[in-house]
Amino acid sequence: MTTELYPRERIGRVQEATATAGLGAVLLTPGPDLRYVTGYEAMPLERLTCLAVPAEGEPFLVVPRLELPAARESPAGSLGVELVPWDETDDPFALTAARLPAGIAKVGVADRMWAVMALRFRAALPGAEQVAAGTVLRGLRMRKSAAEVAALREAGAAIDRVHRRVPGFLRAGRTEREVGRDIADAIIAEGHARVDFVIVGSGPNGANPHAELSDRVIRPGEPVVVDIGGTMPSGYCSDSTRNYCVGEPPAEYRAYYAVLEEAQRASCEAVRPGATPEAVDKAGRDLIAAAGHGEHFFHRTGHGIGLETHEDPYIVAGNREPLEPGMAFSVEPGVYTGPHGARIEDIVVCTEDGYESMNAVGRGLVIVD
Amino acid sequence: MTTELYPRERIGRVQEATATAGLGAVLLTPGPDLRYVTGYEAMPLERLTCLAVPAEGEPFLVVPRLELPAARESPAGSLGVELVPWDETDDPFALTAARLPAGIAKVGVADRMWAVMALRFRAALPGAEQVAAGTVLRGLRMRKSAAEVAALREAGAAIDRVHRRVPGFLRAGRTEREVGRDIADAIIAEGHARVDFVIVGSGPNGANPHAELSDRVIRPGEPVVVDIGGTMPSGYCSDSTRNYCVGEPPAEYRAYYAVLEEAQRASCEAVRPGATPEAVDKAGRDLIAAAGHGEHFFHRTGHGIGLETHEDPYIVAGNREPLEPGMAFSVEPGVYTGPHGARIEDIVVCTEDGYESMNAVGRGLVIVD
Repeated sequence: MTTELYPRERIGRVQEATATAGLGAVLLTPGPDLRYVTGYEAMPLERLTCLAVPAEGEPFLVVPRLELPAARESPAGSLGVELVPWDETDDPFALTAARLPAGIAKVGVADRMWAVMALRFRAALPGAEQVAAGTVLRGLRMRKSAAEVAALREAGAAIDRVHRRVPGFLRAGRTEREVGRDIADAIIAEGHARVDFVIVGSGPNGANPHAELSDRVIRPGEPVVVDIGGTMPSGYCSDSTRNYCVGEPPAEYRAYYAVLEEAQRASCEAVRPGATPEAVDKAGRDLIAAAGHGEHFFHRTGHGIGLETHEDPYIVAGNREPLEPGMAFSVEPGVYTGPHGARIEDIVVCTEDGYESMNAVGRGLVIVD
Repeated sequence: MTTELYPRERIGRVQEATATAGLGAVLLTPGPDLRYVTGYEAMPLERLTCLAVPAEGEPFLVVPRLELPAARESPAGSLGVELVPWDETDDPFALTAARLPAGIAKVGVADRMWAVMALRFRAALPGAEQVAAGTVLRGLRMRKSAAEVAALREAGAAIDRVHRRVPGFLRAGRTEREVGRDIADAIIAEGHARVDFVIVGSGPNGANPHAELSDRVIRPGEPVVVDIGGTMPSGYCSDSTRNYCVGEPPAEYRAYYAVLEEAQRASCEAVRPGATPEAVDKAGRDLIAAAGHGEHFFHRTGHGIGLETHEDPYIVAGNREPLEPGMAFSVEPGVYTGPHGARIEDIVVCTEDGYESMNAVGRGLVIVD
């Protein structure tokens, strides 16, 4: 599976895209770009690890000598890319610069490279204007391969299994933090390598889309927003929101929840090749506004997802870059009235003629006895 | 304790240091610098959160509107710093730039700011040369306050408790990964908020200082290097290495282990105000080299520690910046012969007349029955 998910020929495509973008090279430090290109999940450390992909010539991977065994054993070790180790008292930025073709006018630095490293590269390559390597990589990373979509499907199935267990964790009298701990354990138990976030927003905390886990005790009749996600061993992420209530919720909540379900479905159904993210956002937002809740939905509809939980494309007003098959993103409108709130979130992938959801658990309110 | 550890007046000291360094402002995105200055542990996200500290004028914190509740509730919310929220379709870089004093010639960007954000700031502040904010902050962060040393002491005591439990986890026939999982659970159970790393290097894996947890089965008579660390709720980190063996190790291992113990002690005892990191490195290295193991100790002696596991000062040849009271760092020489290896690591703080170790568990080889 690894070879499919992280194909050996990808580095060649990055090299082509680098040349096409008019860059002399891209420099990728540990993070999602490096993993995408090589499969190597390197730790971001103060010692420089950097894959240099020149537009012309051979790519090479600069690594601290201490990390040489890990790099060799990683998928990067079998790509046929030269590994260039450096020692504790070497200057790895100068070393990298010296191996690049002379006279590079423009160089891409990984979007998530630490600024302190980008500044060291600026000094080592004084003639090269820096741009975000995302200008080269986003076009590739946004269009998921079949293997990447399969990895997202697997992540979706794993987080679905966690949501199916949530009713067993939720009880009136427990705190958000207690429930959150059980959910975090379940995220790992259901196959994720890492917990990325756990939101358990009860009552008024459900009206704060980015609520932190608190010691608030969950009470009967209070709606609870559960927004959870993790990273799978494949590197690909899950992210899904469902809504629960211990006992019967207030009538006004039932009313706006029905609107929200319809809105989330409308945004999903707006997904197809050629549609704009802006239009996907508008489809659901218009329904929520028509029901009088426009001001209660104050965030974008979604974000791309893949090796990062948040990546391109963003589903937001102003983004008119047409969707294409393979693009993967969340569709997660919300209504936040104040005493409570709700959000429904699926990860969807644009297909040849519409969309496929990575999440299969029902979107309706789950009443817990 | 929070007020002591993250004192309100710190932001004023950063402002002074910014002016002294000749910078017009420093821009701090989520990460250790922002936490140091404000106590705010913000998630690094694609939506910009940024504390701007101008050399003259009022600091302000730009936050996505979604994060406003979290920012308000965080320690940053009670610093008297204006919170400037931005909406989904705003340009937060332009917003930040417009609020800074005009004509800034030099601006510091947080060392760990994502390059893509630093590049956005470059476009928004075209007249300002960017430098690493570390030039302003490292001088402050390197010299730990009494409250910071207390936090490191607490972290050291927590990881000591984990090491005391390791003999209960280690048995011949278990894999490194199984033992590593138990250790990770213990790191949390003993008071850390997060596991940062767990190295269980058995036999030849002990000769790789950065070995990953593997499915290798630990066998009788094999030395095992256990190097572990986490982050406490305070934000401060632990990092400690001890050595274990299930049954009796080979004789040659006993021989170099004795040299290593002596070398680690010698480097610790070289720590005092005015001594250089280079001299601390040399004190232990010379003993290891004299015993014929110079080539088997191929990494620096240590790294600073605080809100990051690795930060200034680095204990390495070439670093001649004299130590001062309050500087905190690891002292962790190793000997890696190939069939096995050993490393002994304490976190020490430079005091008025020597050093204090944050770790109290014995440094001798622990034989597990």
